[in-house]
Amino acid sequence: MNTVGIDAVEIWTGNLRLDLPDTFAPQKGEDPEKYTKGLGLNASSFPDSYEDIVTMAANAAYRLMDRKGLEPEDIGRIDVATESAFDNSKPVSTYVAGCLEQVYGQDFHHANKGERKFACIAGTQSLDDAYNWIKAGRNRGRGALVIATDTALYARGDAGEATQGAGAVAMYITEDPSLVELSTEQGYGSADETDFLKPNQQFPSVDGKRSVQVYLARMREALTDYESVAGDIHPDDIAYVPFHTPFPGMVRKAGLLAYRHVTRDTEIEEELAAEIGRQPRREAFDDEDAYREAVREYMDALKETDRYRGWYAETIDPTLTISREVGNWYTGSVHVARASALKHALEDGRDLAGESLYVGSYGSGAQAEIHEETVVEGWEAEIEALNVDAQLADRHDLTWEEYERIHDAHNHDVDSDVEPLTTPEDEFAFDGWGPMGERQYRFVE
Amino acid sequence: MNTVGIDAVEIWTGNLRLDLPDTFAPQKGEDPEKYTKGLGLNASSFPDSYEDIVTMAANAAYRLMDRKGLEPEDIGRIDVATESAFDNSKPVSTYVAGCLEQVYGQDFHHANKGERKFACIAGTQSLDDAYNWIKAGRNRGRGALVIATDTALYARGDAGEATQGAGAVAMYITEDPSLVELSTEQGYGSADETDFLKPNQQFPSVDGKRSVQVYLARMREALTDYESVAGDIHPDDIAYVPFHTPFPGMVRKAGLLAYRHVTRDTEIEEELAAEIGRQPRREAFDDEDAYREAVREYMDALKETDRYRGWYAETIDPTLTISREVGNWYTGSVHVARASALKHALEDGRDLAGESLYVGSYGSGAQAEIHEETVVEGWEAEIEALNVDAQLADRHDLTWEEYERIHDAHNHDVDSDVEPLTTPEDEFAFDGWGPMGERQYRFVE
Repeated sequence: MNTVGIDAVEIWTGNLRLDLPDTFAPQKGEDPEKYTKGLGLNASSFPDSYEDIVTMAANAAYRLMDRKGLEPEDIGRIDVATESAFDNSKPVSTYVAGCLEQVYGQDFHHANKGERKFACIAGTQSLDDAYNWIKAGRNRGRGALVIATDTALYARGDAGEATQGAGAVAMYITEDPSLVELSTEQGYGSADETDFLKPNQQFPSVDGKRSVQVYLARMREALTDYESVAGDIHPDDIAYVPFHTPFPGMVRKAGLLAYRHVTRDTEIEEELAAEIGRQPRREAFDDEDAYREAVREYMDALKETDRYRGWYAETIDPTLTISREVGNWYTGSVHVARASALKHALEDGRDLAGESLYVGSYGSGAQAEIHEETVVEGWEAEIEALNVDAQLADRHDLTWEEYERIHDAHNHDVDSDVEPLTTPEDEFAFDGWGPMGERQYRFVE
Repeated sequence: MNTVGIDAVEIWTGNLRLDLPDTFAPQKGEDPEKYTKGLGLNASSFPDSYEDIVTMAANAAYRLMDRKGLEPEDIGRIDVATESAFDNSKPVSTYVAGCLEQVYGQDFHHANKGERKFACIAGTQSLDDAYNWIKAGRNRGRGALVIATDTALYARGDAGEATQGAGAVAMYITEDPSLVELSTEQGYGSADETDFLKPNQQFPSVDGKRSVQVYLARMREALTDYESVAGDIHPDDIAYVPFHTPFPGMVRKAGLLAYRHVTRDTEIEEELAAEIGRQPRREAFDDEDAYREAVREYMDALKETDRYRGWYAETIDPTLTISREVGNWYTGSVHVARASALKHALEDGRDLAGESLYVGSYGSGAQAEIHEETVVEGWEAEIEALNVDAQLADRHDLTWEEYERIHDAHNHDVDSDVEPLTTPEDEFAFDGWGPMGERQYRFVE
């Protein structure tokens, strides 16, 4: 069996942009740095009134298929991951296939279409399903289209409002891929948690503080589980760590946790010992509280060391560049982080082939997964083909009043008919309601 | 690699029963035979007010784990398929794991939990994902728990009201299984259809006539696709065909379509020719309408032949026995059909090891999938362990007035506090709401 992994990736952003320091902060009466420094975000991507999870998914997929010269017969599987579905039965992937069939002379009638839901981790779960499908020998030479698409909106006034975002990431999964190979080994940390819910509601109920704790606890479990099957990870073996990025500030915490974990019992821990001591070990403490306090102190000191700062700047920070400009894309977020890292490497002229990414996915509710990806020869051409910078620059900058209207346009409980702020061009757009209450779409030249 | 398939299955019915000829028909002012003969249904299973998709799934899974002596560490994956989810982000599988952790001294923290949605076909998609995961070598010796769970309720007065149902099917997927092995080969027929939708609503909007047409069209495509990779299926090679069963009357149509397809160009077609002529071929007709009319006439004649009636009675009818008493369980329905067929074979003393089931799954929206399952030595013990007859007999028979109250109890738009009609015993039950609007559960001794 050949290697299996991601052959190509495309990113599609919502066509609108909400500026956090200049537009959002003044309205909230907050210091702009609460967003730019605290959360680590400059802006959110937003969907225009003719955009939704289907149009963004179909646009990302079409751009990918077009660029790679793929025809529907090359696609054996279309899996969509989302937590913004608008139907409790019919999957988004069928709508996406319907869109793509409008522009191709072929249909996808022999492709397996699916939909996965598990907060933000379902995109990675779909990627894993596609990998398994190929490894199981069921793909008949075809690839899988995996699309993570979300409109990550919060109720107006919710603490999460500043972390909103909207966009889609399409990936083509094949044998002998051109971008990254996936490891067979996976690590999981998963528990029944109540940190982030949408019980019969469109917008989430979030326990923000708990959610941060759960993210870190599950990620630590996943890392331990991964190392139990794949062996210890050494910091020198890591090119980048794309984490799920609800906001870059969360990843700062995750990066520190990961570094402490992978440096334990290494020469790095010893070299740092003169400066900040060795890592606290549980067995050296009489009780859990004292141990935890010692760990907190060690982490605070570790965070300030040049060694850690250098590692973070090289390994983690480059994964956050796109996220800072688009906010949280839920299922797509970790895949945006991967693209951001590879784009950084390309711009730096770095020879990445053969190097390892450790991908840390997460979904509230809650589950973390870690796997390794090995960058393959030819990756530069795939990343060069991304037009994400142009997409981000082309977004329409929302005024506050426009933001309020557009938020209503996407609120299922508000009956609104909002004029679009941009004009669709060479893309799929919402085209009104059908007789059974179904959303309809057309390609706008 | 060993074979991979279903090692064990368990069925959990809702604890209530609505009698169609005696309770439903009189209220609707309809001839009872509209339901018993037309739809082929005697009763629907219903959930009591302390039951939902989580309790039924957890109860099916617990019974399976308990009977097979499984511990949480044996489970590497818990996938739930449903189109009755009550949360747009947190998957049902996390709740199910939370329930099971209450009764086991271990947790499922290293198991991958997921949720799939695609109308009624998501249960089979989850089964396929589990197969692929094991074949890909990612299971570390563990099995997958796949659970299809639904409360298939319609709005009061909807045409689908008579086909309602509620229940869960749990399956344990392993290497070297004790029940059936799955084929690598699969056939798909899939198109963007608007036959059955739940756009931001709990109960479905259905175009009933279209839905029947789409079921048959997609199933025919899936059969053709399957044969293109696995070779032609001969009627003599088929022990049973468990189809997705929204109601047994639908399967009567599907069975006829399948028989026409698999007898074409066989000695059976020749032997029937004296009685009803050979099958119409498209190339012999000038236009599509004339061809279709000829096919309809052939089908009408075929249906009345002893040869077809005998095949139907042996191969299809035994799959419908449980369905007639429980109605539609959506994602679980085709898996109930498989269990029904195997139970029939056991009761008949039939030696089924080595024989083939062709499983025809379907989900509106729409997609059909066909794969082969080979029954393995030892299957009798697995089927003997089912207590489905006792479960069905133990259901509380609803009066019409009770039915109306219980339907409201499960309607998300009705704020009701309905006293249960039965007393939970040795099972998981809904235990009220948590602080974030989450549903909570406990095991009732």
